[in-house]
Amino acid sequence: MKKIPLILMGCGGVGRQLLQHIVSCRSLHAKQGVRLRVVGVCDSNSLIVASDVINGEVDDVGLTQVCKAKSNGASLATVSSHAMSGQEVTSKIIEVVSLLGNSTGLAVVDCSASSETAGILSQVVDFGCCVVLANKKPLTASLEVYDKLVSLPRRIRHESTVGAGLPVIAALNRIISSGDPVHRIVGSLSGTLGYVMSELQTGKPFSKVVTVAKSLGYTEPDPRDDLGGMDVARKALILARLLGHRLTLDSLKIESLYPVEMRPSVMPIEDFLVNGLPQLDADIQDRITKASSKGNVLRYVCLIEKTRCEVGIQELPKDSPLGRLRGSDNLLEIYSRCYNEQPLVIQGAGAGNDTTAAGVLADILDIQDLFP
Amino acid sequence: MKKIPLILMGCGGVGRQLLQHIVSCRSLHAKQGVRLRVVGVCDSNSLIVASDVINGEVDDVGLTQVCKAKSNGASLATVSSHAMSGQEVTSKIIEVVSLLGNSTGLAVVDCSASSETAGILSQVVDFGCCVVLANKKPLTASLEVYDKLVSLPRRIRHESTVGAGLPVIAALNRIISSGDPVHRIVGSLSGTLGYVMSELQTGKPFSKVVTVAKSLGYTEPDPRDDLGGMDVARKALILARLLGHRLTLDSLKIESLYPVEMRPSVMPIEDFLVNGLPQLDADIQDRITKASSKGNVLRYVCLIEKTRCEVGIQELPKDSPLGRLRGSDNLLEIYSRCYNEQPLVIQGAGAGNDTTAAGVLADILDIQDLFP
Repeated sequence: MKKIPLILMGCGGVGRQLLQHIVSCRSLHAKQGVRLRVVGVCDSNSLIVASDVINGEVDDVGLTQVCKAKSNGASLATVSSHAMSGQEVTSKIIEVVSLLGNSTGLAVVDCSASSETAGILSQVVDFGCCVVLANKKPLTASLEVYDKLVSLPRRIRHESTVGAGLPVIAALNRIISSGDPVHRIVGSLSGTLGYVMSELQTGKPFSKVVTVAKSLGYTEPDPRDDLGGMDVARKALILARLLGHRLTLDSLKIESLYPVEMRPSVMPIEDFLVNGLPQLDADIQDRITKASSKGNVLRYVCLIEKTRCEVGIQELPKDSPLGRLRGSDNLLEIYSRCYNEQPLVIQGAGAGNDTTAAGVLADILDIQDLFP
Repeated sequence: MKKIPLILMGCGGVGRQLLQHIVSCRSLHAKQGVRLRVVGVCDSNSLIVASDVINGEVDDVGLTQVCKAKSNGASLATVSSHAMSGQEVTSKIIEVVSLLGNSTGLAVVDCSASSETAGILSQVVDFGCCVVLANKKPLTASLEVYDKLVSLPRRIRHESTVGAGLPVIAALNRIISSGDPVHRIVGSLSGTLGYVMSELQTGKPFSKVVTVAKSLGYTEPDPRDDLGGMDVARKALILARLLGHRLTLDSLKIESLYPVEMRPSVMPIEDFLVNGLPQLDADIQDRITKASSKGNVLRYVCLIEKTRCEVGIQELPKDSPLGRLRGSDNLLEIYSRCYNEQPLVIQGAGAGNDTTAAGVLADILDIQDLFP
């Protein structure tokens, strides 16, 4: 039985779901000849670690306890029964990494949403251990950090950073390794903005569509977190860097669907929803009408092409895969030598803890050949 | 530099294109720290093999010669300058397999369309070597052969057996390994039949659409080779077996688009084209009209669901991904726990030597961690 030792950073949302998947897949993975050995689980202020990190594990009873505490909104410290500083958590993780990097190997799985994990992950790479990410922030940090993380390209997986479990990164890596040059990527990578843009086509005003999306729970509590485009921009940057573009988040052209004078620090959310949003209706309606007269529709997409990497509204043919997209699915069109006139299209749910955690789990299983 | 030693079986069409890709990707792969070391190339009556199989290779000049001969329609024997019997080719390959299985490892790549390779491939597995397939026949042979081939599941890849380079198998393997149960697969896996079914929607008679498809080169020389559904059935069986169905080709329900009394052994091709085909128009037109009255369209698909695995015409909602499909793209809908109401969809060109060979090459790169 092959054992994959792993440490999980971040055990809310996706991380908790991952632990549940790991426990419920025990017999499936045993049939595949693999066991995921959870050596440690941490959040920002606590760490649970196996007493014997070389051979032992946090057992399924312990993992289930973590899941239960986290689903009740409690901190990991309530399970571990002692709180730690971030620095203490980091030191302890690095201690385990240095031990296992020299023996059985280790996968460090980042399911947090923190920008503070890049430092640990860089050290993980230095020790020759593997990195699996659902967290977009380490991959969208400076190019120096990025280059370090991908310096052992077989030892990093990050499918769930773009389109949740959709096999977007896997597909691109296959295309790249087979020497098929990617000319163009266009993708709707926000379920929220996908829903908004396709609803606009039915003639409803922008303010109304956003308000309904918020009431359906499709948006963040403050919809400006979606409308600003930063989440899509991080995904675009990850894809662009995968294709070899030397870009940073600062250098991306990102279109926000609200103007700076309506930004959260200036306009309270209630004011934005009641008075701000309706002011945006006419302009968007105008753009829709113009696009429609040319047989096009508007989509909020990432567009990567030659030296271009943009995030914002694009006019796209009504009859293209993106033009036909309805609802909250993500959709990516990839154009290359092999997929020239008609793109390779990947479409499906691009969010949700279950799907995102399933993508992380598939990544972990996919690096099994690197373990003894 | 990691070296992946490989033997290629079948060097027409896809195999020849693979050799060209390997040669033209040399610097790309060097950057990735990998070199594909071609130890041998064979067709059914000749074999070219490196003089030192442990360390040497057939160099790029040799590979280019093979490509040139094959593209001129010549046999490999014209390059190797001596013809061999099939038995001699087999013995020599097994000799190399046994040598390399115990030292550097080896990938045996089957790009033939032969049903005769299953025996060699079974022995390749016994020696612990890897198998990469574009050839569907070994995977659609008896369950005994199938079980042997997949007995070391990390050591076999066969992306290009379904949908050419489309990441269909990769996506399914990810879903399976993450414990997300697949409920249903529906797919249009024949570019020819996809084109035919979507053209029928425009009101053209079946006989006319098939004749045009033939004149455009979309069909086999005898269109009955497409219309019979056997090629789709093989792909369906490969997908069904991947999901754990214990099926054989004989046990599949396969709908042929022409009746037995028009089979090639009874009706000459000219007779079929001129007199046979038009007799089929009314019936298909009738089915289209009936489907249309319910908001559905007809698609020739594989359908895998619970214990069902069928190949033939299905009525599907006009607004589903398959219902919206036009032209010759392949399209697969996968329904699972994570992709429940809306499926995971993969769409794109599902044929062509370039795309198929690119899929094989990506498979070879994907097993690199199994080599020292």
